[in-house]
Amino acid sequence: MRKLINDPAEVVADALRGLAAAHPELRVDADAGIVVRRDAPRPGKVGLVSGGGSGHEPLHVGFVGPGMLDAACPGEVFTSPVPDQITAATTAVDGGAGVLHIVKNYTGDVLNFELAAELAADEDVEVAAVLVDDDVAVHDSTHTAGRRGTGGTVFVEKIAGALAEEGADLAKVAAVGREVNERTRSFGVALSPCTVPTAGRPTFELGPDEMELGIGIHGEPGRERVPAGTATEIVAAALEAIDADMPLRGERLLVLVNGMGGTPLIEQYVAFGAVSAWLADHGAVVARSLVGGYVTSLEMAGVMVSVCRLTPELTRLWDAPVQTPALRWGR
Amino acid sequence: MRKLINDPAEVVADALRGLAAAHPELRVDADAGIVVRRDAPRPGKVGLVSGGGSGHEPLHVGFVGPGMLDAACPGEVFTSPVPDQITAATTAVDGGAGVLHIVKNYTGDVLNFELAAELAADEDVEVAAVLVDDDVAVHDSTHTAGRRGTGGTVFVEKIAGALAEEGADLAKVAAVGREVNERTRSFGVALSPCTVPTAGRPTFELGPDEMELGIGIHGEPGRERVPAGTATEIVAAALEAIDADMPLRGERLLVLVNGMGGTPLIEQYVAFGAVSAWLADHGAVVARSLVGGYVTSLEMAGVMVSVCRLTPELTRLWDAPVQTPALRWGR
Repeated sequence: MRKLINDPAEVVADALRGLAAAHPELRVDADAGIVVRRDAPRPGKVGLVSGGGSGHEPLHVGFVGPGMLDAACPGEVFTSPVPDQITAATTAVDGGAGVLHIVKNYTGDVLNFELAAELAADEDVEVAAVLVDDDVAVHDSTHTAGRRGTGGTVFVEKIAGALAEEGADLAKVAAVGREVNERTRSFGVALSPCTVPTAGRPTFELGPDEMELGIGIHGEPGRERVPAGTATEIVAAALEAIDADMPLRGERLLVLVNGMGGTPLIEQYVAFGAVSAWLADHGAVVARSLVGGYVTSLEMAGVMVSVCRLTPELTRLWDAPVQTPALRWGR
Repeated sequence: MRKLINDPAEVVADALRGLAAAHPELRVDADAGIVVRRDAPRPGKVGLVSGGGSGHEPLHVGFVGPGMLDAACPGEVFTSPVPDQITAATTAVDGGAGVLHIVKNYTGDVLNFELAAELAADEDVEVAAVLVDDDVAVHDSTHTAGRRGTGGTVFVEKIAGALAEEGADLAKVAAVGREVNERTRSFGVALSPCTVPTAGRPTFELGPDEMELGIGIHGEPGRERVPAGTATEIVAAALEAIDADMPLRGERLLVLVNGMGGTPLIEQYVAFGAVSAWLADHGAVVARSLVGGYVTSLEMAGVMVSVCRLTPELTRLWDAPVQTPALRWGR
């Protein structure tokens, strides 16, 4: 056993108790699985709610706070949150201006957020939704119709969160969230599998000299299994896949090099160096960047590259102050 | 191969190139191994320099910036920086008020920082040093006479950095650094080994159901090898060792639950929950906290707990603004 846990069935609740102890600025209901910004609901402000399976921390619970999410509802590990949980989070943060659901495109998440939106409507809360489907690796997959939502979720939550903080209305906040998603693409590579605590064995097999190109954040299959390459080769595979889908030349980019959970930061910086060199060679500019584990897959080794084609307005909103456990700048 | 690297011999330089691309606010000399705050030297401000072997990122390179270090000099992985490198960093940040070296207590680091201080003195730079030896696990070890310097280094660098930023003189900045070290204790537990890239095999063997209590950050032996326990048991072992050395009851504490590199954030929060519960049961208060990978050991799985007995003044300095790649708050 290499896991730092108590009861495998209690990992999410135990982690939420830890989150509550570490972050008194959040209201955490560990049993219900709801994390809310302490000052919510804020009258007249659009509320932002996201959620999904746990095991991807800091996504989403680490992004609750001023300038980003008003609430997160984590499900069990790699399992969608239930509708009642999402509805409770939604009503908790409605300040009368409506609530935006930011939903990664996995079938269970989509269905449960839709149901929750209907339940919230019964309580007179207006809900809009942004679907995040930034992963270019595969169309349709184990848990998805269409593309999967992955690293780009961080960009959508940050930028929509900044606009909501400024007082924009629900339609505008939803529109900017969709715009970010449309301008964002991601591609992940796994160097090792990960193990869901209650399962006790790896979600897939991967030889010590193999890697999976286009891995999903739950270990779903990607495009192909190939011999493990260098950081430069891995990053090139990711950026070529992204560039083929959304040309990058001439663009000013927001770039996330995202560690999947088991890859140390020194290697993430090696990968960022390779990303930076590839983009310079292909006529694109890194205008903003982030290096670290932001959308993880438990202890999976590997990296995901996410790229957003910025506009001046999206850049301004990215730069706006944010105060959450995992992202903090400005004031 | 599970490493995301190019040439194993170039990992540190490649990572520094990535750091430079991601953080234009730093001046990075990837070949010389020197990372300097862009606005250094600042006239009249005491300069803070730290360094040590790489593989512990974000320590130290991720702590360069306003409110913390003026420069870091990373050595090769798990290898001390060389004296010339340290001297170059020291002279680069001297604004006429002298330079404080923050040195983790490993024999190579201590010797090389001492030599560098002599070389800097030849160039009329006044140097003082703080030795960090917070690890209660063992006296003397593979690389150390006396206790090892580990997670408490973050506390020393942050708090001394805050005082230097306020314009305190070298004697005062050194004194607060020593005070923090004296009030801080750490204890680490490994659930897996790690592999130095140029070695290509694990630094030690650990069975899948074993853990090493009191592990060093280079995989040096700790106190004992025992069957792997729960998060609650692991944390209790760490806190009992700390409490036996420095009683915690009645104290207001700064607590770091530090992931060693391969343990995902969800498990670090499970551990923090257990730390918080143990301290409450033993009459101590968590006044400030930090959860995440701040002093890592490549991809080692495991956790380290570091605890500092705060005073009002140390709390104020911990809360002071900091703007570095890895720690950011206030302004």
